[in-house]
Amino acid sequence: MPIVTVIGDGQLARMMQTEATELGLTIRLLAGATDSSAAQVTPDITVGDYTQLADVQAVASGASAVTFDHEHVPNDILHTLIDSGINVQPVPDALIYAQDKLKMREKMQELGLPVPWFTNVTDPAALPSGKPICLKAIRGGYDGHGVWFTDDAPTLAAELMDKGVDLMAEDKVELKRELSILSARRPSGDIAQWAITETIQTDGICVEALTPAPGLTDEQEETIRHIGRTVAEKLGVTGVLAVELFETTDGEILINELAMRPHNTGHWTQDGSVTSQFEQHLRAVLDLPLGSTALTAPATCMVNTLGGDKEQDIPAAMRTVWETYPEAKIHWYGKSYRAGRKLGHVNVSGADATTVRARARAAAAIIVGKHE
Amino acid sequence: MPIVTVIGDGQLARMMQTEATELGLTIRLLAGATDSSAAQVTPDITVGDYTQLADVQAVASGASAVTFDHEHVPNDILHTLIDSGINVQPVPDALIYAQDKLKMREKMQELGLPVPWFTNVTDPAALPSGKPICLKAIRGGYDGHGVWFTDDAPTLAAELMDKGVDLMAEDKVELKRELSILSARRPSGDIAQWAITETIQTDGICVEALTPAPGLTDEQEETIRHIGRTVAEKLGVTGVLAVELFETTDGEILINELAMRPHNTGHWTQDGSVTSQFEQHLRAVLDLPLGSTALTAPATCMVNTLGGDKEQDIPAAMRTVWETYPEAKIHWYGKSYRAGRKLGHVNVSGADATTVRARARAAAAIIVGKHE
Repeated sequence: MPIVTVIGDGQLARMMQTEATELGLTIRLLAGATDSSAAQVTPDITVGDYTQLADVQAVASGASAVTFDHEHVPNDILHTLIDSGINVQPVPDALIYAQDKLKMREKMQELGLPVPWFTNVTDPAALPSGKPICLKAIRGGYDGHGVWFTDDAPTLAAELMDKGVDLMAEDKVELKRELSILSARRPSGDIAQWAITETIQTDGICVEALTPAPGLTDEQEETIRHIGRTVAEKLGVTGVLAVELFETTDGEILINELAMRPHNTGHWTQDGSVTSQFEQHLRAVLDLPLGSTALTAPATCMVNTLGGDKEQDIPAAMRTVWETYPEAKIHWYGKSYRAGRKLGHVNVSGADATTVRARARAAAAIIVGKHE
Repeated sequence: MPIVTVIGDGQLARMMQTEATELGLTIRLLAGATDSSAAQVTPDITVGDYTQLADVQAVASGASAVTFDHEHVPNDILHTLIDSGINVQPVPDALIYAQDKLKMREKMQELGLPVPWFTNVTDPAALPSGKPICLKAIRGGYDGHGVWFTDDAPTLAAELMDKGVDLMAEDKVELKRELSILSARRPSGDIAQWAITETIQTDGICVEALTPAPGLTDEQEETIRHIGRTVAEKLGVTGVLAVELFETTDGEILINELAMRPHNTGHWTQDGSVTSQFEQHLRAVLDLPLGSTALTAPATCMVNTLGGDKEQDIPAAMRTVWETYPEAKIHWYGKSYRAGRKLGHVNVSGADATTVRARARAAAAIIVGKHE
């Protein structure tokens, strides 16, 4: 049976491991530490540094495919692997657009896909002042890190550039809400898309995802599916691709971010879809036929459980959740407690969006200690 | 987070491991070998012999609960654990009825539950001759081993007893079909039951399970649920209890066998129910609230994939399955190929029993090389 090397040891790799086990695949992990979320549950781990060629080569050798739970492996390492015949999925020529926000924006524009107004920041003084602007570190941001909102872009941009941050700027969009479209693509070309998800971000961290996103017009749905498909095809993405989107107050759809791996906005697929994003990612990077993305319930809501200020008794909290919500599916990452840290998530599926959202929120709130 | 010790290393323990990972629980495995089905995917394994007290004690110490993927741990070992304060679930006083077929039949009769006519075999010559009789080894049988059908019970029973087999005899039932009811019970008493399953056995091995079993009358359904509940309560079973049943040609329901662990006839729950039997077993033995057993589709069919005479290229077979059946959920056990061996199973869920059965059978047939 195939071996899939996964670079990275967070919860995404952990949830790939459970699907790999059911499929009879073996995951070989390059982990930062033996007690990391994925390393705890994966027998075949190597502790190493994904920025070191030798460490990556050691785990890549002999694998049917090499893939990732993050975008931070240096591209020169990936090119070296490919040159030596290793099957890296997705390829670095695609990954670059998940790593570099400016290149991504330029590429989306070139493809005729809708993005907010944006610019590379070379001269801070040339930025618009007195209106809301979003400044972004071109590389290395995640979960709200590397994103700043300001009404005085020239001043803040100058400060950040003084600290050595490469910046781009874009319009702060007048948001109705955020959305996400998950697609999976095989190297041989097939694409499967899941239902569109409505997401809620707090301080840049995804906290909630409701699928299918209520109230989309047919035209919006078509636009969003076209965006997902075009990005996957034109960038040559393989595996799972998440395109995070803005819906503006006047109903326009704009691209926000890309991720080329299983994504927080797709965790609902574990319990709300025939094929989860983790199984699909493994199938896709191995160029196996993609699984059905049909829903298993009319509505599924995922709520993240982030660590609160005070450490909770998690087993006791789970007990309380299940006493009230026997349908709540808790996924727990095995990470140590820290305020604001993503420790797990809860999925609730059911007949309608309002009910599943209310129950998933209430269940998750018990775990993080905010009883609603 | 709690540690659950699992004695046994087959596919049942393997599938507990995937659920434990998602729940953030740790499974500590007593395995017969490092390359066994469950040991391959479980980081915390100890290789040892479950018939040796010291080996069992070593893995049981410090666990929140000790449970099993088979019924073969000697009861004196389990009593010793309990006397030293270890939380063994299910308890040996319940397990005895899954180990000893004669004691089980006697207990069922005592509880007023329907069983075929049966007798302990002390004098083979006293058995009925010239009619179909089922002889059973009182202990140690599984997957059709230890069961013999004969029209000449006196002769066969004498031969088997000469070989030292302790025997019971019962009527060979005129079968319409076989059924199964899965229940889960917590030590504190709550019980959850899944939908009733129709099963097909070939040579004593479960090969197919369709849920919900079509065509049951309300009265049959009530009888079956009563049987499952009564057995769980009166025998003090904890964790998952499978009661395998006969439906006779005239519609009577009779108890066939009991198993006190996740069971082949419950594999459909992985993809057809909100809570799988593996997750439920872990929750039940930890005395956590039980999960919803609601269906996620109107019908789910499970078909086992047993090794054929010739070893297959399994990855190629999976590819072929998924090309035609993108909704087929393949669960693979990582076991080496051997004719007749349970290597995996396929679940297909959908809108109606006829379709899911046809598609699950066809998908499984591809894997074992018998294209239908």
